[in-house]
Amino acid sequence: MVHESFMGWMTGIQQQLESTLEHCLPGSQIEPRQLHQAMRYATLEGGKRVRPLLVCAAGDLVGASSANLLRIGAAIEMIHAYSLVHDDMPCMDNDVLRRGKPTCHVAFGEAGALLTGDALQTLAFELVSRPLDGVDAATQLAMVRTLAHASGHAGMAGGQAIDLASVGVALSLPELEYMHLLKTGALIRASVLLGAMAGRPLADEETERLDRFAKCMGLAFQVVDDVLDCEADTATLGKTAGKDAANDKPTYVSLMGFAEAKRFAQELREEAFAAIEGFGPSAQRLKDLADYIVDRSF
Amino acid sequence: MVHESFMGWMTGIQQQLESTLEHCLPGSQIEPRQLHQAMRYATLEGGKRVRPLLVCAAGDLVGASSANLLRIGAAIEMIHAYSLVHDDMPCMDNDVLRRGKPTCHVAFGEAGALLTGDALQTLAFELVSRPLDGVDAATQLAMVRTLAHASGHAGMAGGQAIDLASVGVALSLPELEYMHLLKTGALIRASVLLGAMAGRPLADEETERLDRFAKCMGLAFQVVDDVLDCEADTATLGKTAGKDAANDKPTYVSLMGFAEAKRFAQELREEAFAAIEGFGPSAQRLKDLADYIVDRSF
Repeated sequence: MVHESFMGWMTGIQQQLESTLEHCLPGSQIEPRQLHQAMRYATLEGGKRVRPLLVCAAGDLVGASSANLLRIGAAIEMIHAYSLVHDDMPCMDNDVLRRGKPTCHVAFGEAGALLTGDALQTLAFELVSRPLDGVDAATQLAMVRTLAHASGHAGMAGGQAIDLASVGVALSLPELEYMHLLKTGALIRASVLLGAMAGRPLADEETERLDRFAKCMGLAFQVVDDVLDCEADTATLGKTAGKDAANDKPTYVSLMGFAEAKRFAQELREEAFAAIEGFGPSAQRLKDLADYIVDRSF
Repeated sequence: MVHESFMGWMTGIQQQLESTLEHCLPGSQIEPRQLHQAMRYATLEGGKRVRPLLVCAAGDLVGASSANLLRIGAAIEMIHAYSLVHDDMPCMDNDVLRRGKPTCHVAFGEAGALLTGDALQTLAFELVSRPLDGVDAATQLAMVRTLAHASGHAGMAGGQAIDLASVGVALSLPELEYMHLLKTGALIRASVLLGAMAGRPLADEETERLDRFAKCMGLAFQVVDDVLDCEADTATLGKTAGKDAANDKPTYVSLMGFAEAKRFAQELREEAFAAIEGFGPSAQRLKDLADYIVDRSF
């Protein structure tokens, strides 16, 4: 169950993140205006901000400063936004609707969307490499490295490549899981890890437990997405529903069945809870967030 | 005039860079293979490697280690390669030939090329954020920042956006210059600056002089490109010649005339030389490279 105090915390973070993004994105009146407008269009006022929420909840665990966590969260959200802009393009998923709005290439043209994604990725690395108060440079360099590793060929982009190659192919469940571990899981894990790197140093064993939590959450997020995609209609979801099934893409629902996929999401939550049990009350935000991710209906 | 000893140095760097890229790029037999093959296809065996040469020549000036310079050079070359892959795509310049080979999207499909460019950009940041021997973390973090700033909306991607918006538009000479300062100039400046950051600390005034040199070189590189594009045929250049003129894109030749553009390149070389005069013999590589950039015929 999601607590009311959690909802307040979440809304607060979402609002502060919006201000941080507003501030970090180039102004829409600065040249080249079309690019800057498209970068803002693709990033602002959209989504649940799950990754920044994970950054902040993990940062809570280690007493990290809120300003640092918001900047890191904004950077990760830009990586996420860039991946959506490129994934929606005609040569990829050819989606015309995202977060209830026309996709970036519909609004700004294909060349514009290509550049927008490129520039959002770059800006993410610029943000993570600007000095963070109270974080030493070596740790920050490790943050850049962790984010790059999670986003690139061995992470998100690699998962996207596997996804691309899997259209019309009968993936096994382990293959599907591997694809999602990279495609969505890697950036979700990076969110937890970067948040945790921004505060008091953790023992390797603590980092490992957080990583196990994050890995379960990454998978759970995707399983729930597949379940929702199967049951929701276009209006509720704000994107074209049933798209994956229509594209003959394998999903947890198509491979496991609906009921089993729902049960699997619950199992992943329990595994995630077990991983961070030892942290005590300071891990409450992470647990609340896990509840939110698994119990959400949109 | 380009010296024989310089040609030997250049060939040596080009070969070592190739090995560094070979080593840093993911293996073509590792999954996802298609992505990794495309990343290698787009980066290996291609181009003059002007940016890594600038990294190494600037690094010579400050006694930086060759291994560090090669890794930085490889990272910058990956940013350059990613920009070419995306620029060649049908929604941008729609080029089918690059460095004498089919462009990436011709060989790997549009979605493949999109992901390849994305993953090359990410890998560049991963490479620059891996610890460099003898370089402190704060300096290295500044390198990441400098590279990101030069590649993003206020640098290369911004220049590309201006270029995109300028097709069929009558740009003035200052507007053309501003576009190129971002589109090609920013990454060339970053090459010199990152090379210089890898060795003994420089006074601000020294960094400024190097930056002035790099700024002139960035412009000269583009002016010479336009001159060559005008006079060369497709076979010599390894890319489709006269493309910019055919696309109604403004060039230095179309705005200044052929003879004046050639003269302007000479002027920029002299200005570049003057900027680094005070460094003495340790700047010889940079001067040789300036000669090479201005006097090249391909």
